[in-house]
Order: sequence, then C-alpha cells, then structure tokens
Amino acid sequence: MKPLDPASSPLLTDLYQLTMLQAYAARNMSGSAVFELFVRKLPATRNFLLATGLGTLLDWLEGLRFSEAELDWVRRCGLFDTGFADWLGGLRFEGDVDALEEGTPFFADEPLLRVTAPLPQAQLIESRLVNIVHYQTMVASKAARCVLAAPGKRLIDFGLRRAHGADAGLAAARAAWIAGFDGTATALAGAAMDIPVFGTMAHSFVQAHADESQAFETFAEVFPGNAVMLIDTYDTEAGARKVVALAQRLRERGIAVRGVRLDSGDLDALSRSVRAILDAGGLREAILFASGNLDEHRLQALVSAGAPIDAFGIGTALTTVGDAPSLDMVYKLQQYEGRPSRKRSAGKATWPGPKQVWRWTDAQGRLLRDEVTLVHERRDAQPLLSAVMRAGRRLRADPPLEAIRARTREQLQRLPAPLAGLAPAAAHPVLISDEVRALADRVDREHGG
Amino acid sequence: MKPLDPASSPLLTDLYQLTMLQAYAARNMSGSAVFELFVRKLPATRNFLLATGLGTLLDWLEGLRFSEAELDWVRRCGLFDTGFADWLGGLRFEGDVDALEEGTPFFADEPLLRVTAPLPQAQLIESRLVNIVHYQTMVASKAARCVLAAPGKRLIDFGLRRAHGADAGLAAARAAWIAGFDGTATALAGAAMDIPVFGTMAHSFVQAHADESQAFETFAEVFPGNAVMLIDTYDTEAGARKVVALAQRLRERGIAVRGVRLDSGDLDALSRSVRAILDAGGLREAILFASGNLDEHRLQALVSAGAPIDAFGIGTALTTVGDAPSLDMVYKLQQYEGRPSRKRSAGKATWPGPKQVWRWTDAQGRLLRDEVTLVHERRDAQPLLSAVMRAGRRLRADPPLEAIRARTREQLQRLPAPLAGLAPAAAHPVLISDEVRALADRVDREHGG
Repeated sequence: MKPLDPASSPLLTDLYQLTMLQAYAARNMSGSAVFELFVRKLPATRNFLLATGLGTLLDWLEGLRFSEAELDWVRRCGLFDTGFADWLGGLRFEGDVDALEEGTPFFADEPLLRVTAPLPQAQLIESRLVNIVHYQTMVASKAARCVLAAPGKRLIDFGLRRAHGADAGLAAARAAWIAGFDGTATALAGAAMDIPVFGTMAHSFVQAHADESQAFETFAEVFPGNAVMLIDTYDTEAGARKVVALAQRLRERGIAVRGVRLDSGDLDALSRSVRAILDAGGLREAILFASGNLDEHRLQALVSAGAPIDAFGIGTALTTVGDAPSLDMVYKLQQYEGRPSRKRSAGKATWPGPKQVWRWTDAQGRLLRDEVTLVHERRDAQPLLSAVMRAGRRLRADPPLEAIRARTREQLQRLPAPLAGLAPAAAHPVLISDEVRALADRVDREHGG
Repeated sequence: MKPLDPASSPLLTDLYQLTMLQAYAARNMSGSAVFELFVRKLPATRNFLLATGLGTLLDWLEGLRFSEAELDWVRRCGLFDTGFADWLGGLRFEGDVDALEEGTPFFADEPLLRVTAPLPQAQLIESRLVNIVHYQTMVASKAARCVLAAPGKRLIDFGLRRAHGADAGLAAARAAWIAGFDGTATALAGAAMDIPVFGTMAHSFVQAHADESQAFETFAEVFPGNAVMLIDTYDTEAGARKVVALAQRLRERGIAVRGVRLDSGDLDALSRSVRAILDAGGLREAILFASGNLDEHRLQALVSAGAPIDAFGIGTALTTVGDAPSLDMVYKLQQYEGRPSRKRSAGKATWPGPKQVWRWTDAQGRLLRDEVTLVHERRDAQPLLSAVMRAGRRLRADPPLEAIRARTREQLQRLPAPLAGLAPAAAHPVLISDEVRALADRVDREHGG
C-alpha cells in the first residue's frame, strides 16, 4: 500500500487504541467518557504555555473516517476479528469538545481541552490529538518568548528545513504566526493559510555567480524594490560596500535596494558596522535582517545591546523547540458513565472528574491566579474552557488566524512581568478546588488504596 | 485553498528557493550544479550518525511536480512574474543523486548525499531534502544507541503522540525500524510500510472498567493468548497478583496471558518483584514489558543492573530526539558549471568541489578511518557514495526495509567499541585530502581573500 496522507489517516494512531476499541466493541462499552488534555509539569525554561492547535484538531475530528484502503489493512493484518473493520468503517467522531481559545496562556494541571464522547471515539483520537496540540503548543510557547524578548522587531519563521518532517514545518508556521511572528519563509503556509511569506536569497545564489556584485545586481533587477541581499558569503563588510556601490548604479535606473541580511559572525558588531556602511552610502532606508542560530536569549541580548537590526529569522531553535522539545502533555480518562476516575501510577497521579479552569485578573486585566474546579462549581472569575464542538460539529467557524493572533497579543500583554520574562519565575498560582481534592480521595478509597 | 498534503507539495519549501528560481529562469542559469548534504559537527552526545531517509527522499524527488492549485497560488501571490508559474509547471527533478546506503554510519564533514542537476532543480529541492533526511537520520542515530545499549532486548517505538506532527510519527517508525528496533506502536507504519506493530492497553482501558481484574479479563477474552496487561494504574504489585489469579481461572478455559507492562515507578525494583510474583504464580512464560520516560541511558542502566525486562517501549526521547533535537546538517553548493565554490562565512566555511568518502576497515571489517577526497581521486578503500538516481530515475528498486535493517545491524557491529558506547568517544578520524585542501585555497584566492 502506498503511504496514505499521515496528517488525515485515522491509522496514524497507536495500535493499542485499535485493540482497545475491539474490546470496547465486543463488550458494547460505548458509554459517555470524559477525557482531558493537560500538562503535568512545565519545562524548567517556560513560565507559561500558549494553547495552540485547536483549529487543526477540529478539522481533523470533523474529517475522521476510515477509507477502504485503511479498513483493508485492518482486515488483513491478522490482529482483529472479522467484523471489526466494518464496525470501524461506520465510526465518526460525534462527541463534544470544550477548550481554551487558541493563544490562551495556561499552566501545569490545567486542562486545555475536554472531550466528552462515546468511549471508543474518545479513545481512538488520543494519539493524533496529542500529536497535533502538543507540537503547536510547544512552538507557540517558544515563539511567544521570542516575541516578548524582541519588542518592536519583525520576527520570521525560518525553520522548515530542520523541523521534524513536513507536517511540523507547516504547523510551526501556523503556531509562530499566532504567537506574534510576522510571517514565515515556508511558501506552503502562505498558500494554505494566507500567512505572510518572506524570502531573500541563499548563499548558493551568490556562489552560483562568479561575482558577488553580479549576484546582487541580478536579484535587484528581477525583484526591483524588493531585493534583500545576503552579504556574508565571503566577507560581510565587503559585501555591504558592494551593495552600496550597486545601489548607486541602480538608483540611476530607478531601482531601490530593500535591504541586506547577515547570517553569521558577531551579529551585534557586524550589524553596527554594516549599518554605518549603508548609512554613509545613502542607504538609510535599507533594512537590516539577521539570522543564524538565533533563539529568544540571543534575540534579547542583541536587542538590549541596541544592535541596529530590523528583522530576525528564527529557524531551528523555534521549529525543533531546541531547549524543550517535548512537554509532559497527557490525555487522561476523568470519568466513564458518570463514574469519576483517576490513575495513581507513581509520579503520574491525576485529578479526577470533568473540570473547569477559572482565571482571576486585576483591573488592568493582568493575571492574578487560577483555580481548577469540577465543572458544576461556580466562581466569580472567568471560565477558560468553552464549548467549541457539539455532537462532532463545530459550534462556529474558526476565527481567522489574524484574529487569533490579535487576541494572543492581548493575552501576552496581560502576563505579569516575571512570567513574561525569559528568566525562570515563581510558578503562577493554580489552586485545585476542595471539591476536586475530595473527589480524588473518594475515588482512591473506592479503589481500596 | 484547503491545505495540500505537505509531505508531497513542492510548495513545502522556503520562499527564497522560488525567488532564486525566478532569477535563475530570468537569466537562463540552468547549468549543472553540484550540491552536497553533510553535517558540520556532531552533537556532543553522538559518536556517529546513521544515514537514513534516502528511500523517502527518492520517492519525493520522483513525484516532484506543481499541481494546478499550487501554480495558481504562485500566480496570485503577487511575488512573481506572469510567466514564472508556467515555467514552474514544467519543472521536474531530472538530476543525479549519489548517496550513502541507508544505515551507513557517517561523521562530520562527510557528504551523505550529492545532487548533480540543473541549478534550479538542485536549488528548489533543498528545504524538503534536508527536512526528510535530517529527521530520519537523527531518529535512526538515536535508535541505534538504544539498540547498542540493550543487546538482546526487544525495543518498540512508542513515540507517535509527542513526535512533532504526523509526518514525524510515521518517519520515526521507519528510521527506528531500520536502526534495529523490533517494531512500532504506530498502526499506519504497519499499513504503509509493513513494519511490525505492537500494542497493549492504556490506563484508560483499565479505568473504564469499575474493576481492574475485569479489565484484564475482558482483554484476555478478546485477544486470547495475546493480551499484555498494563498493571500500574493503581498499584503495580497488586496488579501483578490480579493477573496471576486471573490467569489461573483463564487457564481452565484454555486462554493464556501473554505478559504484563510496567509504565511508572522504579522499573528495576518493580520488574524484579513482579517477575517473582508471576513466576510464583505459574506465569514463567509471561513476558515483562516496560515503558515510561526511557532513553538509551535508562535502558543501559536497567540492562546492566539485570532487571528481568524482556521488551521496552521507547517514546518521547526517541521521536523528539530529546537530547539533540537538531543536527548542524546543511546542503551546500560545491560547484556550478564546473567552477568549484565554497562559502567562507565565519564558523560556517565548507570544503569545495564534488567529493567522495573512502572508508578503511580492518580484517574484521571494523572501521579504521575515513578520507574525504575529490570525486576523481582514487583510494585503496571502500567508496561510500554510490549512484542511486540518474536523470531523475532510481537506478534500482529500493531494497526492502527488512534488508536495509539487516545491513544496518551489520554496520553497527563494525563500529569500534568506543564509538558504539554511550559515553562520548574520541572522534573517528576523517581526513580531508590534500587535493580538497588545495582546491579550497585556490577558490579562496580567486575570491580575493
């Protein structure tokens, strides 16, 4: 069988979901199950996480069905009963989803998503649900740190090539854009999601010309007014001087040079010397773009040093989330047929029952504290989980990405300063309600301790 | 536009590839270009890397073409000339590829792939080429360390959910299987690539039953002889005793229990106590499966302590390559129209010209040293790069994954002991030939230093 599109195939799941489903089907266990998605512990280098990926997940849930080719594998693989494939063929996701809006900061122990559905449906979706939300949430959280570290600078996602596969490259562009990046270099993100795309030139373009100035001239002629020249292939300052000389010749022909890009060396020192060369050469309007192994810490260092850089390309550190490439994010059964439940595995115990998260803010909207309660509890605060899907259908069209991005910017502005900084801060207070604690005790007693 | 399948779309590329292509097209720069893919520096925690992903790459190259929907975006996006989309519509990959066989260990500065093609073709493919080979090579290299750390144990890829997206989940299963894993939990890897799939049950399955023993009994009845029980949901040793009691009842009905799985706690201590409970209860044949935050170091610790564990599920650390989630892997222009080239950017200088890698081994086939030469040089050693694609067509069908896996096992056995160990070892000697060095000097002189 030719590889199916993994991004949509329901076989992109752990085999145990299918074996459990066969057992559920055999025993008619199709009662209502409640699962919640949450992070047990934040990475040491994160003061908050940004919920992201919901729109992608809802698309996937609405389209969930097994194709004939997929069912054929289920029949042939030798692991399942004869009738199971037919049963799977009729399976759709017809459950409910409550979730944080995309771009909402959240913390350890807070559900960012609650699924209520017949047990087999809620179970089957686990692997890909985590796979979608985990990665986009990680990238958006990393991107938000970059945005907060470089106020007023333009940030572009440059990380497709070292992202972990095709899907990650595209998802990273979405998550970074939501978190406040200004765009991406990934062309498909423009075509598929209307995210602004940016691109300059590679070293190979310069090298393919016998002469560096000739490479710049060609590019300026093909993209008049829009050419950003990569000047570090041989010698950065010499490259800048070539751009100045070229710009003077091009000006007579009515062609402007947009800017230059640095991709190596001491970006602080080089940005100053290059800026001086450009300014002295009459190119005060030319923008200065920098890239090369950047992350939020290098961004902050360059910005606070006052390096005259207008825009940054952030690549590998963003799309691989280099300092924290996974989260302890899990999707756990909280209730089945009205009976609350939790696992007590050493170091992995969870809070039982369907829950809500409440957020208190001060008069300026700044976060004060959160509380996790059971769904029926009420607080004089903002409830963060809201209904987004009922009986397998979205309750409303997703907001445009641009609107999600604007709301995210607002959310980031409400973070208390310590959480918004790069240094590890004291954990944001997340209370667990007395009722949740009492329920945990009751569930444990019923399992005999 | 609905998202296109990112795994096959040629728009899954950096925008600058397209802007450069428009400049190449405008200037008729379609001469022969040679690019090479290599790693500048190994991560501190790797003694070798395992070349992987070639089969996936060749599939992608053979299928490379722009669809009408993709060309339509190129026309509409406002960045390109009118005729450019038509020109792109006719573009195919018609170049040559020379590469290391999949599963070959390689080191810093050694090209694992050489592309020779008309400049626009060789340029366009850069982003996705790196994206494919970088991730599979990372995962296979990590997986190989696990395999070397746990000789004789069965290792299963459990890492889909926290892999970075759909494509990564599937590619990780392929790379880990090639490196010597015994299979994967990812069902689609079975359906699409015939990789053996494994699955047990999740905690939610146990929790969905009011009684743990009832959950085990249901599973054993639905999968007679094949059920592996997850016993750590509430109390691991109590769970083991329940399995023993159940197995005695099931035996009368002719149903055997396959084994148990531990997923938390002190796996060394628990595996011993659980093994003792199973043995005392007449379940000497039952296998013991362990999972939960495992990597090559924890594997080695458990194996060398003598923990009686038969099989391990390795998840997040494998598929996110937690300790080294990116490689300094780059694809660089080495020659254009017969003129060798290199960039000299600070800290990023490369060796110019089309190259070959030669490997010397001792009488037992064990690696002694490598040398990187220009392609025309000859050595009395094994050349590692061989022709795999000419004029855009594979020279032969790919070997079955099973054969690649067998060859990889052989290659790993040839690693000198220090390289095969987990501790950082002295770098494997990789010489750069005098001719390569002389060429670099000549190229630098021609660019005026």
